[in-house]
Amino acid sequence: MRTIELRGNEVVLIDQTQLPQRLVRVRCRSAEEVAVAIEEMKIRGAPALAAAAAMALAVTALRSRARTRGELLRELERAGRRIGRTRPTAVNLFVGLERALRAARSAADVEGIRKAVVSEAEAIAEEDVAVNRKIGENGAVLLEDGDLVLTHCNAGSLATVDYGTALGVIRAAWSAGRKIEVIATETRPLLQGARLTAWELSRDGIPVTVVTDGTVGYLMAQGKVDKVVVGADRIAANGDAANKIGTYSIAVLAKEHGIPFYIAAPTSTVDLKLRTGAEIPIEERRPEEVIFFRGVRVVPKGVKVFNPAFDVTPARFITAFITERGVVRPGELAKIFKG
Amino acid sequence: MRTIELRGNEVVLIDQTQLPQRLVRVRCRSAEEVAVAIEEMKIRGAPALAAAAAMALAVTALRSRARTRGELLRELERAGRRIGRTRPTAVNLFVGLERALRAARSAADVEGIRKAVVSEAEAIAEEDVAVNRKIGENGAVLLEDGDLVLTHCNAGSLATVDYGTALGVIRAAWSAGRKIEVIATETRPLLQGARLTAWELSRDGIPVTVVTDGTVGYLMAQGKVDKVVVGADRIAANGDAANKIGTYSIAVLAKEHGIPFYIAAPTSTVDLKLRTGAEIPIEERRPEEVIFFRGVRVVPKGVKVFNPAFDVTPARFITAFITERGVVRPGELAKIFKG
Repeated sequence: MRTIELRGNEVVLIDQTQLPQRLVRVRCRSAEEVAVAIEEMKIRGAPALAAAAAMALAVTALRSRARTRGELLRELERAGRRIGRTRPTAVNLFVGLERALRAARSAADVEGIRKAVVSEAEAIAEEDVAVNRKIGENGAVLLEDGDLVLTHCNAGSLATVDYGTALGVIRAAWSAGRKIEVIATETRPLLQGARLTAWELSRDGIPVTVVTDGTVGYLMAQGKVDKVVVGADRIAANGDAANKIGTYSIAVLAKEHGIPFYIAAPTSTVDLKLRTGAEIPIEERRPEEVIFFRGVRVVPKGVKVFNPAFDVTPARFITAFITERGVVRPGELAKIFKG
Repeated sequence: MRTIELRGNEVVLIDQTQLPQRLVRVRCRSAEEVAVAIEEMKIRGAPALAAAAAMALAVTALRSRARTRGELLRELERAGRRIGRTRPTAVNLFVGLERALRAARSAADVEGIRKAVVSEAEAIAEEDVAVNRKIGENGAVLLEDGDLVLTHCNAGSLATVDYGTALGVIRAAWSAGRKIEVIATETRPLLQGARLTAWELSRDGIPVTVVTDGTVGYLMAQGKVDKVVVGADRIAANGDAANKIGTYSIAVLAKEHGIPFYIAAPTSTVDLKLRTGAEIPIEERRPEEVIFFRGVRVVPKGVKVFNPAFDVTPARFITAFITERGVVRPGELAKIFKG
């Protein structure tokens, strides 16, 4: 099941805000429509955003009335800036944009640009699935029979083009016959754990139990978490990693209880330009996500809400990164980019 | 504003499930109606449950058709067993029941029992308010100008008869002119922080910001939490303390960041019969509290949910207990019961 696809001159994506009630796909006919889908979290997850960004440019190129190479490139750059303003934290979105723009610039004429951008967008999508399979393969050996594996938010098929990063590791371990059980934190405010991770895993027949975010410490104290595996939205050169708000709390709790804490992510999530996690921009989202629940007000009028979408887990809390190039300690992260 | 009152032969209490939308009071005419109100969380909070339990027996006594002392005592004991089955963790509920039953047993006849139980229920309520004021007074000195004070769940007026324990400390500091700001965790699944704590504090004009439970670590890492003050539902002799699920996670995070972690609670919450927190019974509530949000399903069908209502914070994470008899370190807890 592909989260996002380029079909003709449309981007077709699963509307994740409708899950688990309805499995609905929406069609985006312009970069603007993709941008709004991203802003509204119809599509989310760092690797999926790389594909979404590139596909948005592909649709822009396919539908453009530009007559000259220069005109089309300017149009693509404008579309790229629009997409780039949607969500600041996941570096993959910018990687996807850059790759699509670089492909466009390498082409000689309008038709060449169209082909190049479409082909690059499709390559990003295919690579993502292959990379996730490899992450799964590399990480599966870390999970043992009987393990209770906690994950936060959704780093599954729906956060990627397919298969998932953290859930890719879980899927690979499960396929290899390991009897594991998953604990999915519900992940407020948008409940990606309850709505998306639980939905994905239960479709695959992998046992999953949902808990509120506040239950993690209690579970760990009771010996009911053996490993933690989560995704990431941006990883600094020193191994500090941004991921869904709440991840840092889980990492601190894991350390307190001596539980291995793994981040499963493609190497494209590593942003070597940033020395430490302090440089990662953290998106703050609308307070309404916390104030209202499907139209019902739960925070009284006039009360302030602080709603950051991500936090940063310092490298010292991370046991290892599970990447397509292998499992590496935070200190060895830079090494895998050489050779 | 009293959370719960005995009016004539009815228990009148604020229906906390309706807040912050509506401030509605419900009347309970029997112990059974009080028991259901407790089970449905119309009233909650350890100190409030002591009053509710005693008032349930008062209403039972007032409405009883029993003709003999023995008959009425048996009726009260039966009502007490019903109330005692509602919620196992908060010890105050059992303290309230025991006090009311002891008062009943000390009376010579039916009319005497009625008077004794009503008088004891009213005494419990009055004492609670006085004790909370004293807790506030004792704790206020711990909060300084400019402090960002984090609290979890609701340990306010609504969790007590009036004024609150943790929020009592905050109210007292605020009244003393200290410029503090409060961070209220929303507290899933029932959102007592978002719905009740934010409502109470904003009515009092005390600045309050609501965050999701997963945001606590990030806030602490950013230096945006100076103190933590929460309530408790049962405290073991060694200082281990049960409180709303999520409290333990916050305590671990507070320790990691060197932030003082205070528990504000009346000494009646200390259960000297229990040596450690491992002996505190932890209530597990219906999965539906997590699965549905006001009728909307957020966890897919067939997925398991684990929904403990409390967790236990070991004494080593607790900086001090703020009680009506003073501020004490966990190790000194037993001492305040002597003399």
